[in-house]
Amino acid sequence: MNSSWPELNQSDGQVKTRTLPPGITVTARVPASSANLGPGFDSLGIALGLYDEIVVTTTDSGLTVRVEGEGADDVPWGPSHLVVRAVERGLESAGVWSDGLDVVCRNVIPHSRGLGSSASAVVGGLAAGRGLAARFDSALSGTDAELVQLASEFEGHPDNAAASVLGGIVVSWTDTGDLDAEATGPVREYRAVRLEPHPALRATVLIPQERSSTAHTRGLLPELVPHGDAAFNASRAALAVVALTQRPDLLIPATADRLHQGYRASALPLTTTWIERLRSAGIAATVSGAGPTVLALSTGDFPAELRKLAEADGLRVLEPEISAGVQVL
Amino acid sequence: MNSSWPELNQSDGQVKTRTLPPGITVTARVPASSANLGPGFDSLGIALGLYDEIVVTTTDSGLTVRVEGEGADDVPWGPSHLVVRAVERGLESAGVWSDGLDVVCRNVIPHSRGLGSSASAVVGGLAAGRGLAARFDSALSGTDAELVQLASEFEGHPDNAAASVLGGIVVSWTDTGDLDAEATGPVREYRAVRLEPHPALRATVLIPQERSSTAHTRGLLPELVPHGDAAFNASRAALAVVALTQRPDLLIPATADRLHQGYRASALPLTTTWIERLRSAGIAATVSGAGPTVLALSTGDFPAELRKLAEADGLRVLEPEISAGVQVL
Repeated sequence: MNSSWPELNQSDGQVKTRTLPPGITVTARVPASSANLGPGFDSLGIALGLYDEIVVTTTDSGLTVRVEGEGADDVPWGPSHLVVRAVERGLESAGVWSDGLDVVCRNVIPHSRGLGSSASAVVGGLAAGRGLAARFDSALSGTDAELVQLASEFEGHPDNAAASVLGGIVVSWTDTGDLDAEATGPVREYRAVRLEPHPALRATVLIPQERSSTAHTRGLLPELVPHGDAAFNASRAALAVVALTQRPDLLIPATADRLHQGYRASALPLTTTWIERLRSAGIAATVSGAGPTVLALSTGDFPAELRKLAEADGLRVLEPEISAGVQVL
Repeated sequence: MNSSWPELNQSDGQVKTRTLPPGITVTARVPASSANLGPGFDSLGIALGLYDEIVVTTTDSGLTVRVEGEGADDVPWGPSHLVVRAVERGLESAGVWSDGLDVVCRNVIPHSRGLGSSASAVVGGLAAGRGLAARFDSALSGTDAELVQLASEFEGHPDNAAASVLGGIVVSWTDTGDLDAEATGPVREYRAVRLEPHPALRATVLIPQERSSTAHTRGLLPELVPHGDAAFNASRAALAVVALTQRPDLLIPATADRLHQGYRASALPLTTTWIERLRSAGIAATVSGAGPTVLALSTGDFPAELRKLAEADGLRVLEPEISAGVQVL
C-alpha cells in the first residue's frame, strides 16, 4: 500500500509522516444515505440507518481485507478496494502511516441501488483512518468539514458523503472559487450543513432486486433544460428545506422535481410506477439517488397494504431510522 | 366600476353580493419587497420596510382616485388603476360591493426599480378591499393564503406578492395540478410559506435613478440553460433558506446564482458592477427582482465608505427594516 504516497515515505528528512504502532483497532459505523430528495439534485441528502461497519487494525506489515455480507463475492478491486483506498487517504490526511493493515468490512448497505453505498464505504474508510490517527494522537482527529471534503473528492459530489458524515439531513454544495464550472480536482471545495429533521419525519425505502449504474443513469440527463424547469427545482429545493425541518405537510410539493427523475423514468419503470403510486396516495416519494430505490418520506406509518403490494412487486421495504453521522468506536 | 363583474350585479335573484354602506374607511399599509435573493428565481422574497399606504372609503357613487408621492404624475391607467382593480377584486372575492369608492394612494416605493411596487399596489388594494368587507362583516376578512393567491394572479408569479402579504422572508411556489407548464389562469395555485429571518439579518438597497422594465429584462433570459446551472441554483436556493434563517455566515455562497443575473448583466452595468464590488467585500449582494436595484444582505452595518462611493455613483442607499406583511388599519 506504499504506492499511494511514496513521496511521504522517503527518508530524506522532509518526511513529516509518523508511523503508527501495530495493534491499534478502530471500528467505523457508517450509515447509508439517500441523495436528491426530489428537487435537490446532487445537493440534498438524508442519512439512513442501514450501517456498514469497517474494522481496521494496524499490523506490522502487509494488507489483509475480509468482506462479510453485501459485496462479499465482488472482485477485490471493487468496493473493498475503495474502503482500503479511503483508509489510506484518512491516514495520509492525518500525517500518519502504518506498515500494515487488517481491514474487515461488515457490509449491510445494498450496492448499486441508490443508497450511497460507495459514499458510505469512502466515509467509513476515511473515518477509520482518521480514527486510527486520533487513537495515536488525539490532535489528529480532524473535523467533519475535512471528512466531507475528502470523501467528496472520491465521489465528485458531496450529497451522499455529507449525509453519511454529518447525519440527519444535509444541504451540500460545491464552491469552485472562480465559479468556473470546468474546475476540477483540488480547486473544488465541497461543503455541507446539517439540518435537524422534523421530529415526526420518517423514511421508508423500497429496494428493487436489480442494480442500477449511476454512470448509466447520469448519461440519460440532458445537457440543457428549460429555464422554467430550472426555476421550478430551485423553488422546490428551497421549499424542501422548510418541509423537511418544519412543515412536513408540504412534503408533496417540496419533493417535486423536473431535473432528473423524468429523464430517467424509462430506465427505471418499476421505480417510476411506485413513485407515482405513492405520491397519488399522498406519500412524498422520490428516486433515491440515481435509483432504483424509492425513498418515501412521511409522518405516518407506511401503509400495510402498500407494503404488501410492493413486496409482491419484488421490492424490499425497510423503514430505517434517520441516522446520525459516521461513528468511530 | 360595474363593468368588472356585471354578472354579480344582476337583480335576477341569483345575486349573493351585498352592498357596503358609504362611509367605511380602511388604510392598507403595504411593504415593498425584493424577489429572487440570488438563486431563488421567482420563488424567494423578502419584505422591505418601505411602505405605500392606500386609503379607501366607500361612497354613494363614482370613483375618485388621488395619488400622492411616487407615481403621482403617471397616467391614471398606470399603477393607480392597478390599485383600483385590486380593491375591486378584493371586494368581489369577499362577495361585497360598493356603489362608489374614494381611493387615496400615498406612494413611497420607487417604481420600476425591482422593489415590487406593482405587487405592493396589488396586495395593498386587495387587502383594502377585503378590509372594507371585514369592517362590514368580520366573517369576510379572508386568509393570507387567499390574498397570496389573488395577488399572484395579477402578477403571474408569487414571489413579491407573497413577501408583501406575509412579511419576513418567503419561499413561494406555483402548483399547476398536473404539473403542466402550459397551464394558465385559474389552474395555477400560488402558494408561499413565511420564514423567520435570522435576528441579525439586515437589508440594504442601492437604488439607481434609471428605471428597468421587467418585461424587457425577462426577455434576456434563455429558454434553455445548462443542467449543471440548474442543479447549481437548486442547491444554492436550498442553502439560502438555511443561511437566511440560521446561518448568515453562509450568505455569500447561498446567494450565488446562474439562472438570471448573468444573462441580464449587460443590460444592468451599474447594478452588476456594484454586485461584484459588494460580494468582493464579503457582502451578499444580488439583483433585486429584475433590477436595477441591488439588494445587499448582511449582519453588520453597511460600510460608510461603500455608501459614499455608491452615492457618488448616483445610487440611493437605504437600509429598510425587514418588514411584517401588509396591515389593514
